[in-house]
Amino acid sequence: MAASSSLTVSQALVGRTIAHHHNQASTDRLSLLTTLTANRSLKSSTRVSTRSRKSQLVSRSVIRSAAVETLETTETALVDKSVNTIRFLAIDAVEKANSGHPGLPMGCAPMGHILYDEVMRYNPKNPYWFNRDRFVLSAGHGCMLQYALLHLAGYDSVLEEDLKQFRQWGSRTPGHPENFETPGVEVTTGPLGQGVCNAVGLALAEKHLAARFNKPDSEIVDHYTYCILGDGCQMEGISNEACSLAGHWGLGKLIAFYDDNHISIDGDTAIAFTESVDTRFEGLGWHVIWVKNGNTGYDEIRAAIEEAKSVKDKPTLIKVTTTIGFGSPNKANSYSVHGSALGAKEVDATRQNLGWPYEPFHVPEDVKKHWSRHIPEGASLEAEWNAKFAEYEKKYKEDAAELKSLITGELPTGWEKALPKYTPEIPGDATRNLSQACLNALAPVLPGLVGGSADLASSNMTLLKMFGDFQKNTPEERNIRFGVREHAMGAICNGICLHSPGYIPYCATFFVFTDYMRAAIRISALSESGVIYVMTHDSIGLGEDGPTHQPIEHLASFRAMPNILMLRPADGNETAGAYKVAVDNRKRPSILALSRQKLPNLLGTSIEGVEKGGYIISDNSTGNKPDVILTATGSELEIASKAADELRKEGKTVRVVSLVSWELYEEQSDEYKESVFPAAVTARVSIEAGSTFGWHKIVGSGGKAIGIDKFGASAPAGKIYKEYGITAEAVIAAAKSLL
Amino acid sequence: MAASSSLTVSQALVGRTIAHHHNQASTDRLSLLTTLTANRSLKSSTRVSTRSRKSQLVSRSVIRSAAVETLETTETALVDKSVNTIRFLAIDAVEKANSGHPGLPMGCAPMGHILYDEVMRYNPKNPYWFNRDRFVLSAGHGCMLQYALLHLAGYDSVLEEDLKQFRQWGSRTPGHPENFETPGVEVTTGPLGQGVCNAVGLALAEKHLAARFNKPDSEIVDHYTYCILGDGCQMEGISNEACSLAGHWGLGKLIAFYDDNHISIDGDTAIAFTESVDTRFEGLGWHVIWVKNGNTGYDEIRAAIEEAKSVKDKPTLIKVTTTIGFGSPNKANSYSVHGSALGAKEVDATRQNLGWPYEPFHVPEDVKKHWSRHIPEGASLEAEWNAKFAEYEKKYKEDAAELKSLITGELPTGWEKALPKYTPEIPGDATRNLSQACLNALAPVLPGLVGGSADLASSNMTLLKMFGDFQKNTPEERNIRFGVREHAMGAICNGICLHSPGYIPYCATFFVFTDYMRAAIRISALSESGVIYVMTHDSIGLGEDGPTHQPIEHLASFRAMPNILMLRPADGNETAGAYKVAVDNRKRPSILALSRQKLPNLLGTSIEGVEKGGYIISDNSTGNKPDVILTATGSELEIASKAADELRKEGKTVRVVSLVSWELYEEQSDEYKESVFPAAVTARVSIEAGSTFGWHKIVGSGGKAIGIDKFGASAPAGKIYKEYGITAEAVIAAAKSLL
Repeated sequence: MAASSSLTVSQALVGRTIAHHHNQASTDRLSLLTTLTANRSLKSSTRVSTRSRKSQLVSRSVIRSAAVETLETTETALVDKSVNTIRFLAIDAVEKANSGHPGLPMGCAPMGHILYDEVMRYNPKNPYWFNRDRFVLSAGHGCMLQYALLHLAGYDSVLEEDLKQFRQWGSRTPGHPENFETPGVEVTTGPLGQGVCNAVGLALAEKHLAARFNKPDSEIVDHYTYCILGDGCQMEGISNEACSLAGHWGLGKLIAFYDDNHISIDGDTAIAFTESVDTRFEGLGWHVIWVKNGNTGYDEIRAAIEEAKSVKDKPTLIKVTTTIGFGSPNKANSYSVHGSALGAKEVDATRQNLGWPYEPFHVPEDVKKHWSRHIPEGASLEAEWNAKFAEYEKKYKEDAAELKSLITGELPTGWEKALPKYTPEIPGDATRNLSQACLNALAPVLPGLVGGSADLASSNMTLLKMFGDFQKNTPEERNIRFGVREHAMGAICNGICLHSPGYIPYCATFFVFTDYMRAAIRISALSESGVIYVMTHDSIGLGEDGPTHQPIEHLASFRAMPNILMLRPADGNETAGAYKVAVDNRKRPSILALSRQKLPNLLGTSIEGVEKGGYIISDNSTGNKPDVILTATGSELEIASKAADELRKEGKTVRVVSLVSWELYEEQSDEYKESVFPAAVTARVSIEAGSTFGWHKIVGSGGKAIGIDKFGASAPAGKIYKEYGITAEAVIAAAKSLL
Repeated sequence: MAASSSLTVSQALVGRTIAHHHNQASTDRLSLLTTLTANRSLKSSTRVSTRSRKSQLVSRSVIRSAAVETLETTETALVDKSVNTIRFLAIDAVEKANSGHPGLPMGCAPMGHILYDEVMRYNPKNPYWFNRDRFVLSAGHGCMLQYALLHLAGYDSVLEEDLKQFRQWGSRTPGHPENFETPGVEVTTGPLGQGVCNAVGLALAEKHLAARFNKPDSEIVDHYTYCILGDGCQMEGISNEACSLAGHWGLGKLIAFYDDNHISIDGDTAIAFTESVDTRFEGLGWHVIWVKNGNTGYDEIRAAIEEAKSVKDKPTLIKVTTTIGFGSPNKANSYSVHGSALGAKEVDATRQNLGWPYEPFHVPEDVKKHWSRHIPEGASLEAEWNAKFAEYEKKYKEDAAELKSLITGELPTGWEKALPKYTPEIPGDATRNLSQACLNALAPVLPGLVGGSADLASSNMTLLKMFGDFQKNTPEERNIRFGVREHAMGAICNGICLHSPGYIPYCATFFVFTDYMRAAIRISALSESGVIYVMTHDSIGLGEDGPTHQPIEHLASFRAMPNILMLRPADGNETAGAYKVAVDNRKRPSILALSRQKLPNLLGTSIEGVEKGGYIISDNSTGNKPDVILTATGSELEIASKAADELRKEGKTVRVVSLVSWELYEEQSDEYKESVFPAAVTARVSIEAGSTFGWHKIVGSGGKAIGIDKFGASAPAGKIYKEYGITAEAVIAAAKSLL
């Protein structure tokens, strides 16, 4: 029945294709569908085509024959049925929610089925099993595909009632895949292009750990990373950045499926996307395979995966030509099926077209039975690996302990003792240099600390001196060279972070260029990825490079972002404190804004102070009632301190407060806050070399905020500070005006 | 002398190359340099190589021969001298500033010379002449190249004293090219990748105007856009986005030089950038040419430009292999010459190596004389064009008037009368739909209004219904299809905007995805590009798509950004007001945050109100002393109004203030502000479905800010509003707590 209904669909689609397409690719698909319709029962599968394909892959024909031989007619019928189950779970959930994206799951159900049912190794009852294959749905709007697969595979996170609660308040099946809501979902996708970069990060994470921990007699780290991305992901620049790196690094265990369906929200991709993706990926150093019939060509998909696995020194892009909304007689192959429910009438028509007699959300018994093996199989996979690890532990005790800490995320006891401490006698330094001291102090005690810069290592001061570069042939090393690719850098770090709890990735660029990677940083915050963002050159203090390079609004913009720590340390102790906080916060990313210019070590700063977010560094008042409170962050804390000294000379009682992290300060008790900023003291002056936006909450209606509410300028730093009035004199004048 | 000194350089470089490189590309360069050293005096130039080169370009050999024949030995010597003048102006300026990037100007001086001296059409005394060729230095850190060229060409903006003031306070030669500081600089670059996208925008602008205004007997719009981009620009995803579009649009008059110098800040690009750029660009639909000797191969460069011009249906990438810091015997071909002054000793060594006996900043007389022709020639070019335009005006009066308004930026009188007006009786609508009504009302009266969406036209409601799509073969149309490429979209709009003052580009995506394009938006603000950003789905009100799609911190993040207008209209009148403001502000970009959901037309809203940024929409108090002030923006203004109605029923005097644009409100007089928010009224409640960050400045220490300081959720919008407490009940409770 399934086979004959598929025949009907193919015929329906041929009609639609004629109506819709005029270009070469469409013609190819058209003739392909016709061929398939004619040759449906033939065992010899359609040839996989690729421009770059090596003509003599040794094991290839063997693998292909084997795969084909195991496919009995009945089995193919069951695959059809399973694939249609996935399609209808998506259709039904979207229909019930009257919201969502049925098109992609309907088109990608075949590759989804093959991946989760035939290819991937996972344990549904422990979604966090370390050595599982990772899957990322970069085209996150198609999340019903993933929910349907997790449901069939037996994950507890997606039960039938969860499917029925798709996109509803409090459900585990939100509108886009969210790792923090749904175990089994590895990363958070939806914003296009992010997922494939996460996948690059996951694959990097695997390659690195494999190189560090595998032994000739024990491949203890060994999994693939699979990804499905769509036309939208391909158009986003971030994906080109990450895929260029994946090619450079030779991530052979990364296999990405490009759902080449020729439809995006505005219609046929021909209106804005006519590049040759194949050629581009060949340029990026990928192995490229084209599966011409992604709708029903199961063997083509299987063979492509086998081929991809056989290419070990390059990531593989499998371009899978599919029909969006496959099976819907009136909406397939059109944008109308992308992001809306089909509607009752078209759901009926699709049921009829695909020969699907079942109630909504029904999983046929034979399909259910077929998939049920994944629970025992998954348990076995994990048990086998656990046994392997026990052996490994016996032979390689130290390595096993280190790997264990990477797997569990348990930080070594006393790690924070490695952080340097400073006194005012120690000569001052730029906080970017102090940051490097912290990174290099922490690297030996934190096995998961890996990272690098977007081509600014020597400016951001991010090199771990005891390690070499993570490269194709030296993947055991820990310095990552991202090139000038800030956005991918952030998203790759999200992938690394979410690979294993013990990974602590950091990445770096100039603070102003957080603008390039803001979407990835936001996903760190949302997906609870404790990435450490090392952002140097944090103000006009960078000087001559001028306004394109000088952050103004950036501190405010991140203070407004949920679940992220914006830290701007003032000296050595505060930089160490910032790292203490950043490493401790594994489910909240941290941004460290660091100076290019030298800053003195101040009296009164401390790691403990930083952990409170805001604290008093000096005060000559008694009874919690200073005449005035001066508050600042980072490089301006020195200025506030100088102003305080002057005011004290004139007999004033002055408190100086460092507000290194507003978020941490906000979390303190009311009592503590009253002890730092007593409500009765309304004479408050803030100074920060950035936007004053937000400071009025701190200084209150009676206070003054000194800052910069315009763009910077190109000149030596000292000159700009003076011209922009970021001076002790300005603080003194403001304070006096309030006294 | 110049020739023999170049020989020395080549030899010096051969030595360095051996020491530094091991890969194939380097070997190619090595053998090339050797060949060049040997064949230096031969007239027959090195062959231009390209993978995609058409073997039979009809006019090619003729052009090549012509170019070669005109080159007498003396002339080549003079070119050498001019090129070295450029190099030393850059070296000297960076040395004097002790800050800057000498490496790129030293490597790119030959292509710079050929462009500005031999190829480009411009008028130094009128940098804004409409029909000039545009040049963009995407690798903006190399700005001394451009300053040196503008200086030699006779622009008044870069005199000798300006070169001496490089990177100093108040100078016209800032650390990166800034169009608002230096006439002759078209756009603001420095953040990598932006410039080449601006160039795509400039080329689009030309192609569009040419298609709209050129006549069979008058090619009144006709110029090229040239660009130099480096490895850094190539790595940035934004450049891939824009170049994919440039290929799609067939921007044949866009010619980009890729300065392929194999060095970025972290060292050899081999550590992070090993893709085949050529192959990628072929995939993107570009014509690709490789100039193997960019250091001294003048004829190669010339021939490549001719070839590029002969390819009319594709943009051309000329990959020019150069040596960064060419001429510096000890620093060339290394990262150390990228971003630091050479130092006195190495400057001397470079002078000796290149045989340059002159004082710093000296332009030899013969070079000066040679370049001096550009002033009369430029004047002639403009005069000829003016005469042509006079002819055009006679024949095509209406077109000429329209083109003139595009050139001058003068808006048609009374354009704002086209904006729709609303009363509360008119059924409510989503502000995204009201925005579409405005766009479609304005398109007929604003000849420069062009724009589109990043594949969300049907969600952002941005289609101009009376126009078709700007495409390769329909460039006269005004709807631009950007595909899912937000970042390039913003940067392309900056290019369009800065092409001619009358262009009013708009672009659109979901508000949350401003994160993808923030770096381009910031450059709109900095470079005074009045782009209109149409950002829909502006809050949790979008519902089921969930937290990845729901903006929270975005309003605050743009309120903190300098020189940009963040507008969040509440209904029909306010949407019209937002367009009034956005169109009027040609040197300040506007962001319109628009709702997905339906909103009622409120009593008291007005275009005039929006122009003040904040204004009273209702009040039942007298004497400027209401019991409480409720303030809101956008979709929450309705909630504030409802709460006010309830409170008034209970006998309170309540004022409701719309704060549609904080920036505009901030610019009002103190008197006006006191009339809206009297200092004496401290009972103030704000409500906005976004971060409360920043609101305390408005509500004061005594007020309350209702908002959302965490991520959103996936559920129907009404449910989220209720669960998140964005309700009239919450406003009433807060108000009562203050009374």
